[in-house]
Amino acid sequence: MNTKAQDGVICPLLTPFSADGVLDAAAYGEHARFVIDDGCSGVVAFGTNGEAASVSPRERLIAVDALRQSGITAGQLLVGTGYCDLETTLKLTRHAVQAGCAGVLLLPPFYYKNVPEDGLFEWVARVIDGVNDARIAIYLYHIPQVAGIGWSQELIARLRAGFPDQVVGIKDSSGDWNTLSHLMTQHPGLHVLAGMETMMPRAYPLGCRGTISGAANICSRLIADMIGDLDAGKEPAQIERIAAIRSALSGLPQIPALKYATAARTGNTDWVRVRPPFMPVPARDGAEFVERLERDGGLAFSVRGDK
Amino acid sequence: MNTKAQDGVICPLLTPFSADGVLDAAAYGEHARFVIDDGCSGVVAFGTNGEAASVSPRERLIAVDALRQSGITAGQLLVGTGYCDLETTLKLTRHAVQAGCAGVLLLPPFYYKNVPEDGLFEWVARVIDGVNDARIAIYLYHIPQVAGIGWSQELIARLRAGFPDQVVGIKDSSGDWNTLSHLMTQHPGLHVLAGMETMMPRAYPLGCRGTISGAANICSRLIADMIGDLDAGKEPAQIERIAAIRSALSGLPQIPALKYATAARTGNTDWVRVRPPFMPVPARDGAEFVERLERDGGLAFSVRGDK
Repeated sequence: MNTKAQDGVICPLLTPFSADGVLDAAAYGEHARFVIDDGCSGVVAFGTNGEAASVSPRERLIAVDALRQSGITAGQLLVGTGYCDLETTLKLTRHAVQAGCAGVLLLPPFYYKNVPEDGLFEWVARVIDGVNDARIAIYLYHIPQVAGIGWSQELIARLRAGFPDQVVGIKDSSGDWNTLSHLMTQHPGLHVLAGMETMMPRAYPLGCRGTISGAANICSRLIADMIGDLDAGKEPAQIERIAAIRSALSGLPQIPALKYATAARTGNTDWVRVRPPFMPVPARDGAEFVERLERDGGLAFSVRGDK
Repeated sequence: MNTKAQDGVICPLLTPFSADGVLDAAAYGEHARFVIDDGCSGVVAFGTNGEAASVSPRERLIAVDALRQSGITAGQLLVGTGYCDLETTLKLTRHAVQAGCAGVLLLPPFYYKNVPEDGLFEWVARVIDGVNDARIAIYLYHIPQVAGIGWSQELIARLRAGFPDQVVGIKDSSGDWNTLSHLMTQHPGLHVLAGMETMMPRAYPLGCRGTISGAANICSRLIADMIGDLDAGKEPAQIERIAAIRSALSGLPQIPALKYATAARTGNTDWVRVRPPFMPVPARDGAEFVERLERDGGLAFSVRGDK
């Protein structure tokens, strides 16, 4: 049987860039250790929140090694490896599997749209065949509103039937409740990770036990506590604070805003840096965001956003 | 001043893969020479029709060199170089510019959607800065229905103002007449290449003199003759045949169908091969397509599609 990701809160790590534009491996590892200490069961290297598409395959391989060296265990690590071309996808996937990572997050090849499902099935088959390692654990990465293409329920069922030991789970970032509930009820044994932590109270009774959520970069403890309450059969106490954080985030570009808040938490202003096509949030918006996170979300920051 | 693409018909080359899945450089060069002999003024390596996203950066560098070695001059060659990450985009762009290619087709970074125009401007600025070669000639590649993101008229104006010697043209594959006519009338000096040859009769009076069209893979001579008639001030004689070819193509996935027809023309059945997420057209559909190309489009094939 394959390795598999944890339940609980998994943080899709933001990716820090230093002043010369290079991925800052030290800050990356520090951030990963922080969220683990703050309640996360695992981390994702190079999901959408990690500006994965803006980081070259070469840099991604190096950064995954750096995370491991910083003390993140392979079992705590999921790696986004889906690219448009098979050669690059295989290189990234092999590297993650050979490192023993808990799983890989696989985007569909996302340039072409309206492609046949047979073609996507064949794509996954070639990934599995090309990696050729019994340890592979694929989490389909479903984020159609960004990728422009997703994994349909029919295709998921076919992939599960065809590759029951390899296609073990899905990260559902569609933000669509019907999709998430169908995944929970129609695909027995599929390890479903909710892309929005706010859906956990509703998804929990259906068996959903884990979430990979961008918000975990700034409030993993709250989300972990919420899941802890659900585990204990209690009404989650943290729902309102999480909702307030979501509300503060809602008017802003998510990645730059989360990075601004991370700069405020760490005192490392390099964190505000994003790669194009993103732009940093203006300092005024960032400062207001951090203020709302403190006031309405009850988060504490070591350094104010406006400093 | 920069190098610049030709007017007339430029063929966005299909990309052949041999039985072992490898890019077939010999067949690629042969096809490029065929379309040049058949009336094209130039070729594009790795546009959408060339399954660019499915070909790794490594393979793309090799294939561009192979095209040059097959006798395609740098002046005849445009290269698609836009990727999601800057490092890869710079590598592909530098390579094309240093080879003296007539231009590069630059997709916007296409994973993230609804990104700020400032971020896209910054992206182009970094490409120009990173390549740092006065010969660079950027053709913005506008194909929002596939890429999920495009170049707005406002952004094009800003880029032209900011980089008048570098951002020289655009390939408009939107298929939208308003977009194309605005490009012709609102951006003096911009070299506009129409993405649909069928729009040429209407665009010609506005000053449009060139087209990059997937159909050129199978009927470049017809399109070249159409433009020749327009140059001569005559009613283009080939419009009906071109329309018939477009009609035959309309119900089919374009790339697999064009490849099927190319297999029929060359007798090289390797040409039917596509990479996932595409699938080859079923032989029956392909044979019917070829039949319609002959019957309604007046094209001649050395080998029947059903052989």
